[in-house]
Amino acid sequence: MSDASTLRPLRASSVTEWDQQADVVVAGYGIAGVCAAIEAARAGADVLILERTGGWGGAAAMAGGFIYLGGGTPLQQALGFEDTPENMETFLLAALGPGVDKAKIADYARGSVEHYNWLVANGVPFREAFWGEPGWEPPHDEGLMYSGGENAAPFNAIAKPAPRGHVPQMADKKIGRKSGGYMLMKPLAETAESLGVRVEYDLRLGRLIVDDDDRVVGVIAKRYGKEVAIRADRGLVLATGSFAYHQQMIEGYAPRLIGRPAAAIEEHDGIGIRVAQALGAELAHMDATEVAFFGDPQLVARGILVNGRGQRFIAEDTYPGRIGQATLIQQENQAFLVIDEASYEAGLATETSTPFFRQPPTWAAETVAELEADMGLPTLALQATVDCYNLHAADGKDPLLGKKPEWVRPLQGSLAAFDMRGFTAGFTLGGLRTDLDSRVLHVSGEPIPGLFAAGRCTSGLCAGGYVSGASLGDGSFYGRRAGVAAAKN
Amino acid sequence: MSDASTLRPLRASSVTEWDQQADVVVAGYGIAGVCAAIEAARAGADVLILERTGGWGGAAAMAGGFIYLGGGTPLQQALGFEDTPENMETFLLAALGPGVDKAKIADYARGSVEHYNWLVANGVPFREAFWGEPGWEPPHDEGLMYSGGENAAPFNAIAKPAPRGHVPQMADKKIGRKSGGYMLMKPLAETAESLGVRVEYDLRLGRLIVDDDDRVVGVIAKRYGKEVAIRADRGLVLATGSFAYHQQMIEGYAPRLIGRPAAAIEEHDGIGIRVAQALGAELAHMDATEVAFFGDPQLVARGILVNGRGQRFIAEDTYPGRIGQATLIQQENQAFLVIDEASYEAGLATETSTPFFRQPPTWAAETVAELEADMGLPTLALQATVDCYNLHAADGKDPLLGKKPEWVRPLQGSLAAFDMRGFTAGFTLGGLRTDLDSRVLHVSGEPIPGLFAAGRCTSGLCAGGYVSGASLGDGSFYGRRAGVAAAKN
Repeated sequence: MSDASTLRPLRASSVTEWDQQADVVVAGYGIAGVCAAIEAARAGADVLILERTGGWGGAAAMAGGFIYLGGGTPLQQALGFEDTPENMETFLLAALGPGVDKAKIADYARGSVEHYNWLVANGVPFREAFWGEPGWEPPHDEGLMYSGGENAAPFNAIAKPAPRGHVPQMADKKIGRKSGGYMLMKPLAETAESLGVRVEYDLRLGRLIVDDDDRVVGVIAKRYGKEVAIRADRGLVLATGSFAYHQQMIEGYAPRLIGRPAAAIEEHDGIGIRVAQALGAELAHMDATEVAFFGDPQLVARGILVNGRGQRFIAEDTYPGRIGQATLIQQENQAFLVIDEASYEAGLATETSTPFFRQPPTWAAETVAELEADMGLPTLALQATVDCYNLHAADGKDPLLGKKPEWVRPLQGSLAAFDMRGFTAGFTLGGLRTDLDSRVLHVSGEPIPGLFAAGRCTSGLCAGGYVSGASLGDGSFYGRRAGVAAAKN
Repeated sequence: MSDASTLRPLRASSVTEWDQQADVVVAGYGIAGVCAAIEAARAGADVLILERTGGWGGAAAMAGGFIYLGGGTPLQQALGFEDTPENMETFLLAALGPGVDKAKIADYARGSVEHYNWLVANGVPFREAFWGEPGWEPPHDEGLMYSGGENAAPFNAIAKPAPRGHVPQMADKKIGRKSGGYMLMKPLAETAESLGVRVEYDLRLGRLIVDDDDRVVGVIAKRYGKEVAIRADRGLVLATGSFAYHQQMIEGYAPRLIGRPAAAIEEHDGIGIRVAQALGAELAHMDATEVAFFGDPQLVARGILVNGRGQRFIAEDTYPGRIGQATLIQQENQAFLVIDEASYEAGLATETSTPFFRQPPTWAAETVAELEADMGLPTLALQATVDCYNLHAADGKDPLLGKKPEWVRPLQGSLAAFDMRGFTAGFTLGGLRTDLDSRVLHVSGEPIPGLFAAGRCTSGLCAGGYVSGASLGDGSFYGRRAGVAAAKN
């Protein structure tokens, strides 16, 4: 079956028989889909979820589970962190741009506490514990962590630092550790099904069905190649995830991710984006990407990270995803970690949830000059960097990049360096342009009647930057909005 | 009139009367449009150009006029430069990516000599003279120049350097200097009109008209608010330029250009892209941008360019557009030029076509340490950079970035620095995805029947990188293809 027959909309008048029908049809049973289904059902709609795989979860169930929330959530308050919606908004505007959807950021920051409470009311557990060490995720079941560099330069001078990475409590390790993402999805899926939401598995989203006024009234889905016509009386919600696994879209929109998809699932083939494009949907920020960096944050914070020219380029104690973006986009994917023996040992002695980031050093040397030569850098390239760093580090300062004093120490004695070139991978953040009610916007700026979307098939909070929890965050938040709006449609 | 009524396609069955008709209708009378019109007319079609302003030219007529051509053009040969299509292709693949349309690059490199000859045959004059100095444009009417960093690091080690910036000879300065772009457009417009191409001025492109099979059969255009229905029997060619002046598209697709459009005209409002999106057209590389850097290349090559941390980041003798991209995208738009008095005087003494780039230094000092402090850089930040540079420059080398020996000299004596933060501006390179026949591709991958496009409303040769002449180059090359394909349709 060609892409064309999958993508071009079908006129409702040519559908002779509808195989299924619901008030609201949701395509994709990940975080955005489940939240849409719950809210649509609560608003009185008969809801049908179409899921391509054999079970609920999507990429969400495999994720670490961060949901980016703040503005003074009960969890933040219980753990002694002050935050306000305005403070959260200030940070997000600085960290996620340039070009963010300002209305969406303001809306999300203002609705964040209510959204936290909604998640808890729907069974998502958060343990009242804070993890304050550098890292990608908490090592145990701590519920709160910095997940976007809020407490690092340059953002700690722009907005009052508050941790906003909320992690659902993981199941007891004795009975098999489940990720935070699984523990987010499970109660929500149970809630949806308790509300009478129906689910059809092994059904792939295909072309959309429109009436003579170009209103979306259904969808053709496929089960093992057989087409099924499904009627959506009030609305269709697209919640089908990113385009990280659609090769042509990656090449055409986000080419820096060629060959390096991560934290996505192969079902993320952009289909939700493409069927909406076929109706004239507008896109946004298609080049934006989350970028993971596979260096141990406990070691990175204690050393200096240099690019292919031996120059520092980022405060090493910031959010690892920021390091990933800076390395991939600004440093041609070239990074080396230089650390002295004492700091290396100190870092190794820490507890971490990500031991697979640990590897032996690539080079070891007694002097910077020797290390520089071993790394193939021009004479003085690394020495000059270390001289400047050490001069200020002796006073506990980092005027060049603003690493916090607690991580600043002159490099001395035996040194090691890790070759971290190409140590990045990520997923796409761009997609359909939607409004605050998750209506899919036509290129004209008007909503496409009957069509809603949320999650990573949309452009959400992130334009250029990223924070861990933004995807499950805007996916769940605007998934809910999609469900409400579709049910009322 | 809302954007919606401008953008949503109109069914042909609802058009009661056609005001105009042609075999091939071309929207936009810039470089892509004029080339499409010429080839369509030569293929026997009756051609009508719709132009929004009162005259031909578009952005092309105001441009410097570079057309990127190579592979052994007669001009390259006459001036003693060897080049082959394969060599040109190798360079373009390295310089314009990642994510380039490889088929288009191969096609363009192979067709480049023929395209040069076609331009000459249609009256475009090129003077047999080479300009080899750093700069944006030749200062006089030289016809050939390096325009993409072919002879600078890293590309001079990847492909054999050959200059490919072909500039139409400017008119006699005595009778008023006309830009190379004007001298490109003038003979082509005269050729088009000699072939009987009709032109309607002051007509703005509006919504497309499609038949019941979604084939494009015409367009609604507007003259002073009044709608005019124009029938295109064989095809419609979109040649309406970039989206540099559509604020929402810039924010959503290329936000680094917010507030800094350049080398575009206000008519570049993305209309051609949007009317095609409304039919389900696929896009590509919407974040890609040309970026000008407003520093005098004669001075830049002689000094060192440092970022906001006092670190070098690019070979200073490369194509200024590469410096612009690196500064804006990789260095947060922070750049400073540091130069010593002797090199400054030497640079000032050169001839340049761009005297408006010249400005007095922001700081002057007797030592690097003093300059560093004046610039507000941390102690040793700039000194370390200069120490490393000078060490190798004493041997005429630049192992860090590969600046060519002819420009490498230790910085010594009195020093000056120029604050070049924010000294960038540019235009957009992304747009409609088209095939080698300039057919606009639907998101399904199939061509949209009856619809063709070329120039900056399409994604052409450039993905991430840029070379001067790529826009007039692919605009003219694929404009021709569009004309041929539409006429045969």
